[in-house]
Amino acid sequence: MARPKTSLSPKPVRASETTLADLMSPPDANINGTVFGGRILALVDKAAAVCASRHAAKPCATIAMERVEFLVPIQLGDLVVVEARIHHAGRTSMEIGVEVHAESMLGGPRRHANNCLVTMVALDAKGRPSPVPPLSLETRGEKERHAAAVRRREDRLKNR
Amino acid sequence: MARPKTSLSPKPVRASETTLADLMSPPDANINGTVFGGRILALVDKAAAVCASRHAAKPCATIAMERVEFLVPIQLGDLVVVEARIHHAGRTSMEIGVEVHAESMLGGPRRHANNCLVTMVALDAKGRPSPVPPLSLETRGEKERHAAAVRRREDRLKNR
Amino acid sequence: MARPKTSLSPKPVRASETTLADLMSPPDANINGTVFGGRILALVDKAAAVCASRHAAKPCATIAMERVEFLVPIQLGDLVVVEARIHHAGRTSMEIGVEVHAESMLGGPRRHANNCLVTMVALDAKGRPSPVPPLSLETRGEKERHAAAVRRREDRLKNR
Amino acid sequence: MARPKTSLSPKPVRASETTLADLMSPPDANINGTVFGGRILALVDKAAAVCASRHAAKPCATIAMERVEFLVPIQLGDLVVVEARIHHAGRTSMEIGVEVHAESMLGGPRRHANNCLVTMVALDAKGRPSPVPPLSLETRGEKERHAAAVRRREDRLKNR
Amino acid sequence: MARPKTSLSPKPVRASETTLADLMSPPDANINGTVFGGRILALVDKAAAVCASRHAAKPCATIAMERVEFLVPIQLGDLVVVEARIHHAGRTSMEIGVEVHAESMLGGPRRHANNCLVTMVALDAKGRPSPVPPLSLETRGEKERHAAAVRRREDRLKNR
Amino acid sequence: MARPKTSLSPKPVRASETTLADLMSPPDANINGTVFGGRILALVDKAAAVCASRHAAKPCATIAMERVEFLVPIQLGDLVVVEARIHHAGRTSMEIGVEVHAESMLGGPRRHANNCLVTMVALDAKGRPSPVPPLSLETRGEKERHAAAVRRREDRLKNR
Repeated sequence: MARPKTSLSPKPVRASETTLADLMSPPDANINGTVFGGRILALVDKAAAVCASRHAAKPCATIAMERVEFLVPIQLGDLVVVEARIHHAGRTSMEIGVEVHAESMLGGPRRHANNCLVTMVALDAKGRPSPVPPLSLETRGEKERHAAAVRRREDRLKNR
Repeated sequence: MARPKTSLSPKPVRASETTLADLMSPPDANINGTVFGGRILALVDKAAAVCASRHAAKPCATIAMERVEFLVPIQLGDLVVVEARIHHAGRTSMEIGVEVHAESMLGGPRRHANNCLVTMVALDAKGRPSPVPPLSLETRGEKERHAAAVRRREDRLKNR
Repeated sequence: MARPKTSLSPKPVRASETTLADLMSPPDANINGTVFGGRILALVDKAAAVCASRHAAKPCATIAMERVEFLVPIQLGDLVVVEARIHHAGRTSMEIGVEVHAESMLGGPRRHANNCLVTMVALDAKGRPSPVPPLSLETRGEKERHAAAVRRREDRLKNR
Repeated sequence: MARPKTSLSPKPVRASETTLADLMSPPDANINGTVFGGRILALVDKAAAVCASRHAAKPCATIAMERVEFLVPIQLGDLVVVEARIHHAGRTSMEIGVEVHAESMLGGPRRHANNCLVTMVALDAKGRPSPVPPLSLETRGEKERHAAAVRRREDRLKNR
Repeated sequence: MARPKTSLSPKPVRASETTLADLMSPPDANINGTVFGGRILALVDKAAAVCASRHAAKPCATIAMERVEFLVPIQLGDLVVVEARIHHAGRTSMEIGVEVHAESMLGGPRRHANNCLVTMVALDAKGRPSPVPPLSLETRGEKERHAAAVRRREDRLKNR
Repeated sequence: MARPKTSLSPKPVRASETTLADLMSPPDANINGTVFGGRILALVDKAAAVCASRHAAKPCATIAMERVEFLVPIQLGDLVVVEARIHHAGRTSMEIGVEVHAESMLGGPRRHANNCLVTMVALDAKGRPSPVPPLSLETRGEKERHAAAVRRREDRLKNR
């Protein structure tokens, strides 16, 4: 099916790139003394929401989050940095890629903590799906991530 | 490959079934006035952690969370009920299935809000992976969910 | 005095039975390292509010909480389960019984942590007391709890 | 039964009088837009714990809270003032009286929101009940509150 | 420049004196195990806001906070007492002085933790600066603090 | 007085530059519906602590925060970005400059919300002041900020 036309002008990926960063503190601990996984997922969701809202210039809600792997445990005293960028813009939904890194504030290497794909939808004032601008792809990386997002989208539609 | 032997006696699924439930209140809201997706993911992660820890009788950490779809928006004043049960026990890791339902405390239908698969690992006192009891499957549903978990595990190993 | 008539149809006790459950985590600790009593009272109040709102199908506010005994200390890592059920429905107020149990997520017995009686009132859109449905009592236990609630109510009116 | 002797020197009531006060803010709201009852109970419990710990010079835990009436709704923007003072010191337990007042920060009368009696126990380093100093009563009001606390204690022992 | 006339009647300093007090608990800790400085600044800001709102009988917002020194570390288990009083009332802004003391709930001396000067502005319903009552100075201390506030204000205007 | 020698090798400013960023959500609101000033001060304090700890490679505590001006109100839905960088390293203390910007996630200009200077001290394992590396200044801006910090430090010592 052809992509419905929209009068919205295209926006580049860099216009909505978003970084959130926070220091992990005692209230973020789980019973093991490391950081509660749900705390990280909440940051991922927040970063994706800011990135999507910046692209859409509208409030956005989370539709789905793809498989997340927790690659390394995150400790109290770690600075957690969450980077979100848009891969693909549909008519009303967007795929946002989120990368999480952690780094002790006392030094030591930056660790890759996880990657995550989040699908967000833009909302109008009544909370219904609402059109978003198309994406203008500028770099090779952006084009590759866009193509991969299109393939994932097709796979999901096929598997329904 | 043969499953490594363990001296731990098998445990039934029902021994670790876990329900968490909480009322959604103003601090749980996002900018749209509905419940922040990260709040729900944090509940899902907590329920999976309790279920896995009950099965393992050891503290557990989150390894991965599969695709989560947010099927319906959750409102302030909703009671959110999160049900977790173990599908599969490996040597040190477990697949936990989590279902989320929401229901207005003022009445109206119970809505299915999302399903989610969480992989947890049991930890010893030094935070290293530690063996968990095998699972004794009792019902047809348990056997089906176990078989599906085994297939997913094989698919993941193949795709690496 | 005769019970004022109301056009609301009676509701059974089971229609509003409510269970909340949560894992006790580091932010719930007091200075002694056990769970802060106020955290448990907040859960009790929330469970009673959900139960009363379900019966009334209206928002409800807390009028009074009877004597609560903290029978056992609750630890971090405990799953706390709070069960609320309606004992008696007056014209606009309800007596809700709440039982709290705690259980380590690493295993061990379920401990009875406390019992509590909460009086809630239903509110209309202006925050004034508003009628609630009468209660239809189905089991012997329900009838006994209802009779005890009536006696407590009479005692309180006498002691004013 | 004679009160067991203790080598601890008596302390006056005023030595442990405690006032907590906080401004009610949006995260303290319930679904009705007023302050969540559990928020007030948590403040009451905290104030009683500070008062008891000051008297005992030891960490203390909550044993019981008597009937609390919520006399007036508390609003966002209210300053809530919670005053705790010791009524009676047993061998290891204490009865603490707590009064709650609320007052809009924009002016208007101070409202009496509730009264509450809390029984606390002092703990040694292993979490076992531990002796507290006797109370030296100085004013007529202190003697009356002490006598009432003794009567309540006797009534409770009778009713067991 | 002459002070603009206002029809509001003067209010004494004592009419808006405000004390907030809270027990420092595990969620207030930083990575060092002492209380997070931002927790104390948040209490200072809240106390100044209540004091200013009481004087103005209007909502107030923070304009500036002068140099704060953290004189002693604050520990978990400390009762923190924050006292705010108005030094000077301009046409729409006020200088509020805030003193913070800390005291272990297990006994020991009251420690002076910091002093702070906060400038607040009163707001009308549209969030614009709005007149506040003049201040009636009653004691020598009040007059001295007022004079010092006037000097600071002049210094700031000069240094712009 | 000559600066005491230390065996620690100098570190550049860029090695400890820190950015924290967070989305302002309903629990961050004050009674006026804008963001609570104390929420911003807590972010400033956290960013300064991360920056100082990175430079010192040791835990750090806040000694003082200079005058902060709140230049613009911050709204729910704003992304708040807090940038901290070291201006000056003494023997055990550091001056950290923090800039706060806010930007609606729905678009619109980035607003300069405030500037702030924070003095932090490095701590050894017993919580006593502990030496920090000297600073190697690389750019003209760094040298200017360093010189201004030295002047402020001298002024403060004079005014004691």
